[in-house]
Amino acid sequence: MAKKDKEFRPKARVPRGFRDRLGAEIAAERAMLEKITKVYESFGFDPLETPAFEYTDALGKFLPDVDRPNQGVFSLQDDDEQWMSLRYDLTAPLARFVAENYDGLPKPFRRYAVGSVWRNEKPGPGRFRQFTQCDADTVGAPAPHADGEICAMLASAVEAAGIERGDYLVKLNDRRIIDAAIETCGDKDAGEKRLAIMRAMDKLDRLGPDGVRLLLGSGRKDESGDYTDGAGLSDAAAARILSVLAPAGDNIASVCDALDEALHASEEGRRGVADMRRMGSDLLASGYGSDRIRLDPSVIRGLEYYTGPVFEAELTFQTMDEKGRPVRFGSIGGGGRYDDLVKRFKGVEVPAVGVSIGVSRLLAALDMQRGGAPEAQGPVVVLALDEAEMARYQAMAAELRAAGVRAEVYLGGSNFGKQLKYADKRRAPAAVIEGGDERARGEVTVKDLALGAELAKSIEDNAQWREGQPAQVSVPREKLVEAVMGVLSRRRS
Amino acid sequence: MAKKDKEFRPKARVPRGFRDRLGAEIAAERAMLEKITKVYESFGFDPLETPAFEYTDALGKFLPDVDRPNQGVFSLQDDDEQWMSLRYDLTAPLARFVAENYDGLPKPFRRYAVGSVWRNEKPGPGRFRQFTQCDADTVGAPAPHADGEICAMLASAVEAAGIERGDYLVKLNDRRIIDAAIETCGDKDAGEKRLAIMRAMDKLDRLGPDGVRLLLGSGRKDESGDYTDGAGLSDAAAARILSVLAPAGDNIASVCDALDEALHASEEGRRGVADMRRMGSDLLASGYGSDRIRLDPSVIRGLEYYTGPVFEAELTFQTMDEKGRPVRFGSIGGGGRYDDLVKRFKGVEVPAVGVSIGVSRLLAALDMQRGGAPEAQGPVVVLALDEAEMARYQAMAAELRAAGVRAEVYLGGSNFGKQLKYADKRRAPAAVIEGGDERARGEVTVKDLALGAELAKSIEDNAQWREGQPAQVSVPREKLVEAVMGVLSRRRS
Repeated sequence: MAKKDKEFRPKARVPRGFRDRLGAEIAAERAMLEKITKVYESFGFDPLETPAFEYTDALGKFLPDVDRPNQGVFSLQDDDEQWMSLRYDLTAPLARFVAENYDGLPKPFRRYAVGSVWRNEKPGPGRFRQFTQCDADTVGAPAPHADGEICAMLASAVEAAGIERGDYLVKLNDRRIIDAAIETCGDKDAGEKRLAIMRAMDKLDRLGPDGVRLLLGSGRKDESGDYTDGAGLSDAAAARILSVLAPAGDNIASVCDALDEALHASEEGRRGVADMRRMGSDLLASGYGSDRIRLDPSVIRGLEYYTGPVFEAELTFQTMDEKGRPVRFGSIGGGGRYDDLVKRFKGVEVPAVGVSIGVSRLLAALDMQRGGAPEAQGPVVVLALDEAEMARYQAMAAELRAAGVRAEVYLGGSNFGKQLKYADKRRAPAAVIEGGDERARGEVTVKDLALGAELAKSIEDNAQWREGQPAQVSVPREKLVEAVMGVLSRRRS
Repeated sequence: MAKKDKEFRPKARVPRGFRDRLGAEIAAERAMLEKITKVYESFGFDPLETPAFEYTDALGKFLPDVDRPNQGVFSLQDDDEQWMSLRYDLTAPLARFVAENYDGLPKPFRRYAVGSVWRNEKPGPGRFRQFTQCDADTVGAPAPHADGEICAMLASAVEAAGIERGDYLVKLNDRRIIDAAIETCGDKDAGEKRLAIMRAMDKLDRLGPDGVRLLLGSGRKDESGDYTDGAGLSDAAAARILSVLAPAGDNIASVCDALDEALHASEEGRRGVADMRRMGSDLLASGYGSDRIRLDPSVIRGLEYYTGPVFEAELTFQTMDEKGRPVRFGSIGGGGRYDDLVKRFKGVEVPAVGVSIGVSRLLAALDMQRGGAPEAQGPVVVLALDEAEMARYQAMAAELRAAGVRAEVYLGGSNFGKQLKYADKRRAPAAVIEGGDERARGEVTVKDLALGAELAKSIEDNAQWREGQPAQVSVPREKLVEAVMGVLSRRRS
């Protein structure tokens, strides 16, 4: 005894910033990912799975220094002294894979990937250090057709996941349009103010044109009194940029007409618009109209990284925050063109375009539309009232399984009340009961647990309850499966 | 230019002991895991997902020392100085989860888990440092019913994965039977020789009774001349142990009769046999007879760890090794009872029993039965012969997808030969061709690529080939989907 007390007992705790996930949440994510990847596959994308680790130098990070080996990523040193890191996204491993296997790959190379990524960051509410990403990328095809295809695929994937048409919009833009707007706005220092201008543009959605005008100019004070410095453009330059941001119509072609006029002075801008126009015509021909995909010159999608078309899937339906105030759900995924990722390895540019769906955000959106997280449906529980008869109970469970019904025998003792409580906790739709009397009569009782719980709320006294017992039925033993199926079909309707 | 050449260019390489996986292999694993987990679910098991990391102390390892922080597991130190390790199996995280959430869990707690585990070991041929496990465990139920259930589930899972009844056997045993055989063999030092005796028993399958007799006694020289020391039992003691190992029949009850007689002197042994008997009766009642599950007293399943029933699923069909010699495939999974895992945290014993299926071994077995790894089926490729008509090609691909056909437009330029080569590389079943002439006639050509490849082997000259062209058909544009479906159904039959 004394010896036992001295044993080291670690405290059981999930590591900081990580979490366990159970039944219904896993099932919902799995079902959603299956629908999304089926869409990816229908577009010709094949799965690729890379390991959790990459060499740290391949991830584009420098060797971690001795004091902070884990800046942003989780890193460790292998036996042979090489630093390895857990992947922080699915794009860096794709770049490594393509560079390593370039000659043998079909080109263009379309691949999708679903998997965990790890971020060594300060955890916060709802911010975890491990989460799932779901990406698709086309490597080796230049703009614009591969980009249009991926936009279409994003729209189809969002719909397949369960967001109805009209409740989302894929917003499309091109970096070259942004750059041309800045270049041609008439402020000779605009190039230096680029990041501030883009940050201002990015707020059109939330602040409207007047707010953005202030941020492009001298600055803006928000409702809380906080002041944000402006980009310092003149009124005229700010107005010119705003004229590019305001789309001229729903239709991609008509927005392109307006942009051509606004940006005719910039060759790069004209090229960007021409690509948008061709994407628009691909998309229309494939059945993706302005109810699903629109050109919106205010879409920024991150400040650096992308080199051409960018796009973002936004949910447009209103929802309520915890305080009951209406909010827009916002972005649930997006992507764009990046033509310099493989270059790090090979020294040559390989064009690429990709999309990433925010798995947990999309799941949260589906929960909201459904009015809550999905509820798990437990198995049918066969009560085990008599240890000596266990083989009979096991046979019942086996029969139910053979008929396609989830079923299990209670294995925690013979107490009746405890067994029913367990069945409730498991959210079992039904309990199967064969007590001694029933066995003598060759019968079995099937209890509809969900209906029972409902009735218990409305029935006034215990006596009435016992009399009616409408939530349970006794049938000959050989009708067990039939009776359980009856209860289950009642649940489903 | 000079600046570019100076840039650091990492070599693109997958980390040592890890691997990338592509299309068909991923699809085969996913399909198999889906079938197995469906069986787990039908038995009432719910999924649990724990993070990749656990605190190192919770994994049952001591804090790694400074020189070898990674002995066996991949470990790193978090910002707050705590050591974390990547999980090396799915059982240790289950123990941590159950200890952490004990009061809130339904008991018994049935959970399954599928996921990657990591081993910081020397990689070898076919031995990787990351692989997939697929476990199910029942926590909080004592032997024998929970154990019988898991044996039945293992058999059903193996069949669901695609191994036919008759091609596998779940072999069942109980640690207490092993211990009783050792205890009652008549050698007073048998307890000290326990591990050597068990190692000898474990070889009955491969060496037969005579080989095991030598290993139990003075030792054995194998065909290559290598000598293995024996356990040092007397002939009489070795004979007694062998009499326990040789099953008296296929039927669990009759083997139990024989064991009862052989082991009547050991109370623990009699308890083990009684549990086997009850498992046998549960299993028979549930339809699992000796064609699927047998009691085999020679099954060891690892030397320590388990405390009661153990079981192992073995493939019984013969297969060929690389040199064409017949080999038994052997174990593809198994498990047993371990009643002290949660004890590390809680100080109390919580009974548990679990099974683990060797995902990559089972996949390899299925490949062998099929006569090779599954081949990926690529998408239908719509050739893009004219950049100006891209929207038309995209529309065709969209139509095919809407009909449930995987389809993509070629996006790597307009060279005809290159496009057909690409389609071959992608294993496309068909190519869709709309050249200028066809477009003028309102037609489109569908080329059956698999049939084309077959015919190309048998047709004698090019002229004959061009004349016949039986592998392609031209149809009015509006019949595109129909024509492609025709080709695909020909492939499937």
